[in-house]
Amino acid sequence: MEPSVTAAHAVTASDVLAAQARLRRYLDVTPTHYAERFGCWLKLENLQRTGSYKVRGALNALLAARERGDLRATIAASAGNHAQGLAWAGYRLGMQAITVMPRTAPQTKIAGVSHWGATVRLHGDTYDEAKAFAAELAAQNGYRLLSAFDDPDVIAGQGTVGLEIAAAMRPDVVLVPIGGGGLAAGVALALKSQGVRIIGAQVEGVDAMARALRGDDAIVEPAATLADGVRVKVPGQLTRSLLHALLDDVVIVREAELRETLVRLALEEHVVAEGAGALALAAGKRVAGKRKCAVVSGGNLDAGVLARLLQDVRPRPPRKPRQRKQERLPPPAVKAFPLAAGLAAITCRSIPVPRQARAESEEELLA
Amino acid sequence: MEPSVTAAHAVTASDVLAAQARLRRYLDVTPTHYAERFGCWLKLENLQRTGSYKVRGALNALLAARERGDLRATIAASAGNHAQGLAWAGYRLGMQAITVMPRTAPQTKIAGVSHWGATVRLHGDTYDEAKAFAAELAAQNGYRLLSAFDDPDVIAGQGTVGLEIAAAMRPDVVLVPIGGGGLAAGVALALKSQGVRIIGAQVEGVDAMARALRGDDAIVEPAATLADGVRVKVPGQLTRSLLHALLDDVVIVREAELRETLVRLALEEHVVAEGAGALALAAGKRVAGKRKCAVVSGGNLDAGVLARLLQDVRPRPPRKPRQRKQERLPPPAVKAFPLAAGLAAITCRSIPVPRQARAESEEELLA
Repeated sequence: MEPSVTAAHAVTASDVLAAQARLRRYLDVTPTHYAERFGCWLKLENLQRTGSYKVRGALNALLAARERGDLRATIAASAGNHAQGLAWAGYRLGMQAITVMPRTAPQTKIAGVSHWGATVRLHGDTYDEAKAFAAELAAQNGYRLLSAFDDPDVIAGQGTVGLEIAAAMRPDVVLVPIGGGGLAAGVALALKSQGVRIIGAQVEGVDAMARALRGDDAIVEPAATLADGVRVKVPGQLTRSLLHALLDDVVIVREAELRETLVRLALEEHVVAEGAGALALAAGKRVAGKRKCAVVSGGNLDAGVLARLLQDVRPRPPRKPRQRKQERLPPPAVKAFPLAAGLAAITCRSIPVPRQARAESEEELLA
Repeated sequence: MEPSVTAAHAVTASDVLAAQARLRRYLDVTPTHYAERFGCWLKLENLQRTGSYKVRGALNALLAARERGDLRATIAASAGNHAQGLAWAGYRLGMQAITVMPRTAPQTKIAGVSHWGATVRLHGDTYDEAKAFAAELAAQNGYRLLSAFDDPDVIAGQGTVGLEIAAAMRPDVVLVPIGGGGLAAGVALALKSQGVRIIGAQVEGVDAMARALRGDDAIVEPAATLADGVRVKVPGQLTRSLLHALLDDVVIVREAELRETLVRLALEEHVVAEGAGALALAAGKRVAGKRKCAVVSGGNLDAGVLARLLQDVRPRPPRKPRQRKQERLPPPAVKAFPLAAGLAAITCRSIPVPRQARAESEEELLA
């Protein structure tokens, strides 16, 4: 898709760059970590302030509003992380934030919001009920209603994740979890023109965006899933049109794969991801790429849930690394004779053998 | 202590710099992460290859040996992480590695060693029994016996952790866990001349080095502890003499504090640390500093142990952040009148109030 396609949209790559300039003062760049046993880089947004990337979009929205002279209180409905991001941004900037969360939101996310001094209203059992209530409160009180994903400022803020990945490791594929589509749209805006493929990940039965992109607009109650953060019934309009133009593919992940990936992340990579945070990496297995990066979007998981997963899920042992006879030393003065190479490899370690020669970097060796 | 003191030792700051030059090609710099709710930076060596800093020392030892033309097989006794580091280094360089571990070592560490193709011998119930057996095998077979801490190459390798911290966040205090003392000695060599205070952390009842530094050489059976990685009965001679010259203090941590810190690391910072990995941060609470950094030395923890901790330990909720009324905007043109400041603060937000003025950076605000 041409970059010019996006010019028609309410948000462009320039807005992502503007967001990066705004956020730089408040948020550190999160680490990009190579997960050796997965053969994939991880963008660790679980180490982001408030434990998820959502703070980027919320903070960008408040800062952009302040630039426009809009100092209204901001209200948002959220399954948890958008609310925490907004609460932290409100705390950091001294602006008033109100959040509406479904009663089913994880305890750790509810505690996080009130920790930062934002007002918490628990309403309804689903994100959609909370959203309707937030809209009502906004209309009554003149608050600014901030969508968790379908807002140009929010999308631009989330897109800064993509800029940081590109600066850290020159990816050829970036995998992102999709709920409403804010992160995926932002990252695609940031990276598509750099020739990076953008792959979305959704959970089986919680795939509203994947269906919408195929033209299926039926509203289906999403299945129960560990990935509460992406359990969205109606994806965004703006995000949908951006993803229609920019997204390369969506991979659907089974719940069991998600659970196993989450446990392996904790035990092998020593990283705590929430359900949605393990989703992109789980999808990574089905995607080819030499330099893959999966966004670990968040880490806010209740202690009891993690404890139960650690007890119940026994991941298969990781694949053995490929045999590595001897490190390739600096190129020898002797020239290789192709015909004798098979024999020579046994007796003389300094003649390059094709297989070793290809496996120069660690990533390729283990991919 | 003057830097010149260390010149008398078998290992100096120059060796740490040499190690950094050697390791650069093989190991990425690990992230330094600001843990907001702890008011402390974390050096995330649990994200290091093999899940602990130990790979630095082992790899440096093999590389230095190769430079000297010593291509013998290397054997090491280890509670787990040194063995994994050696196994990975052997795999990476194509050199033979043999490890002896006590039968009580965590499953995840034993699996890690054999994953990388090193020979694993399980012997005895303690590190000391494993060590005696490793020495025996080395004498019989002409292997190089590599101590987990009392070796100049190993100490220099571990010291690269200190160089990376200094480059990332200009610390005033660095906290390190102490078992045999290799990490602490290396980090002290790297940072002491830069004016950084180095504080060691030990567990109550597992404090051989703290006692040795006080002149108490009695050999005491260490208590049972979650921090298997630092459960050392006899600390190193070389490390001891270095730490005597360079270490500022040792903090003794109670087992319960260690457990709580480990659980908080997982739930609040989304980082999986093993017992020894949470030790330095647990000690950090008792240490004053504006820019503190604790080394999270490793993350190799059995699934069952982590699950049980998550169920049993209920950390107290974190302290509320200090109230933050309004972000300090660029300095106003109006001058503050000290006598009227108390009153003015209520009505006019642009006159700097001392408390807000001090709390410029996030760290200070939350410290």
